[in-house]
Amino acid sequence: MSRVLLTGPSGFLGTHCLALLQAAGCGELHAVNRTGGPLLPHHATGVHWHAADLSDPAAATALIEQIRPTHVLHGAWIATPGVYAHAPENLAWLQASIALALAFARCGGQRFVGVGTSAEYDPDSGPCVEDETRLRPASVYGKAKLSFALALEAAAQSAGFSAAWARVFLPYGPGDPPQRLIPSVVAALRARRTIALSSCEQVRDFIYAPDAAALLVALLWSNERGAFNVGSGHSVTIRSALEQLAAQVGGAECLQFGKLPLRPGEPLTLTADMKKVSDRLGWQAPTSIDDGLRACLMLP
Amino acid sequence: MSRVLLTGPSGFLGTHCLALLQAAGCGELHAVNRTGGPLLPHHATGVHWHAADLSDPAAATALIEQIRPTHVLHGAWIATPGVYAHAPENLAWLQASIALALAFARCGGQRFVGVGTSAEYDPDSGPCVEDETRLRPASVYGKAKLSFALALEAAAQSAGFSAAWARVFLPYGPGDPPQRLIPSVVAALRARRTIALSSCEQVRDFIYAPDAAALLVALLWSNERGAFNVGSGHSVTIRSALEQLAAQVGGAECLQFGKLPLRPGEPLTLTADMKKVSDRLGWQAPTSIDDGLRACLMLP
Repeated sequence: MSRVLLTGPSGFLGTHCLALLQAAGCGELHAVNRTGGPLLPHHATGVHWHAADLSDPAAATALIEQIRPTHVLHGAWIATPGVYAHAPENLAWLQASIALALAFARCGGQRFVGVGTSAEYDPDSGPCVEDETRLRPASVYGKAKLSFALALEAAAQSAGFSAAWARVFLPYGPGDPPQRLIPSVVAALRARRTIALSSCEQVRDFIYAPDAAALLVALLWSNERGAFNVGSGHSVTIRSALEQLAAQVGGAECLQFGKLPLRPGEPLTLTADMKKVSDRLGWQAPTSIDDGLRACLMLP
Repeated sequence: MSRVLLTGPSGFLGTHCLALLQAAGCGELHAVNRTGGPLLPHHATGVHWHAADLSDPAAATALIEQIRPTHVLHGAWIATPGVYAHAPENLAWLQASIALALAFARCGGQRFVGVGTSAEYDPDSGPCVEDETRLRPASVYGKAKLSFALALEAAAQSAGFSAAWARVFLPYGPGDPPQRLIPSVVAALRARRTIALSSCEQVRDFIYAPDAAALLVALLWSNERGAFNVGSGHSVTIRSALEQLAAQVGGAECLQFGKLPLRPGEPLTLTADMKKVSDRLGWQAPTSIDDGLRACLMLP
């Protein structure tokens, strides 16, 4: 019987992963966050909750030794909007994640999926192809994530477990923290309040969060190894996405494009090639950006 | 005043680094190995010796907190010939090295040079150029080293210290462990004993160990950041190097080329581009392979 451990079950993508794992009824399901309990009551059903600070290597190790999971989907990491990219906490998460992976190996774990980031890629290289595009993370976050990807690969190779690494592009949708771009813009449009933006000509691969979670869970149940992009395979300018929101909710005049500079080092284009995912997993993102953005507007 | 900590001072390259640092009289010089003492009496002069197992994160942290070095040259890592490439201990060295780098940052350290490996590169890409050639380590050793390189870069960026990463090609010369290729061949030639070899058509950048150490120490005193190859910039087939030894010591008939297969995954070509080192540090390897191999024959 499989014993699945989901870390980060209260995060943006983690919440969706938890719902999918609950629905799948996949043997024993364990989830861990700082409080040891779900944010929403229905997240309790059929889930063994644990309290631990997984940025502490000793706590991560102890948890694995207690649960002895066969499968881990490791989503937990610092993700505070506006802070995570250069926070020193990335190094603590790196250390503790390595400890977690090594404890998993020692306890006979079979399948580990880690959650990485499009920020590992060199964005100047065109659509990012998992095993082709140069890796050149600029942020502390991107470097720490890529460092863990390599540590995980080394641990898997050494101990003989199966591992995959999911590089997530730009997730959006239900559960997106209110400080992030799309929720902030929706709130501003609804209140008919101006909002200062960059040119927003950056081209991105937006992936609907429940779709991203579905791909993470599909990876967990597969035996595919190595890196996999988590994107839609379709890219748009951020500006066109925001204008689409305004077209539906009104308030286009609130969008003050070009008022802010790009963040230092922010790439103009960061897009996902999804051929490997399609070839190996037969997976395609089901939700178009039109449908996904409409869904964002149906949220409270 | 600078306080330099050399880890791995009793290793193949470390011994040469220690001699150079002793000769330079660079402020306070600290060295750490498992026994806490030098292998040779003259390695004691002007050196503060410490005993610690640096594959233990707690020991690495405690040592840094005790010494509070301004400069670290981190050579310590598992290096057992025939074993290191896939040993699980690589993961322990990775964990402990991250702990060491983070303690260094907390204690106000200024300059950190880590010792990496040519095994981080994708060998199919021709001469390896630091910031161009794809990184694709095949061994657990190469993956763990590259993981640490990224962690070090993240820590340096986050804490504001200066770091460089030295990718060492094929060092040879005095101090080479007897189980390694050149000492084994020299011993066989001298004893007129046959020795089974692969085709030895592999092309490699041999770097004379005292030269490699000089470049590591030059990097330590520079403020250059990022990755630097440690090679000679001149490559030869392993076969031609061994035949050169036989030409001098006799016993060419002992060299049984083609008796062994290549090790799985062993690249045919793994060579260093030395332009970045030359441009940034004005450094060139002083010892030709002819002189270096002659020096090997003068050793006991």
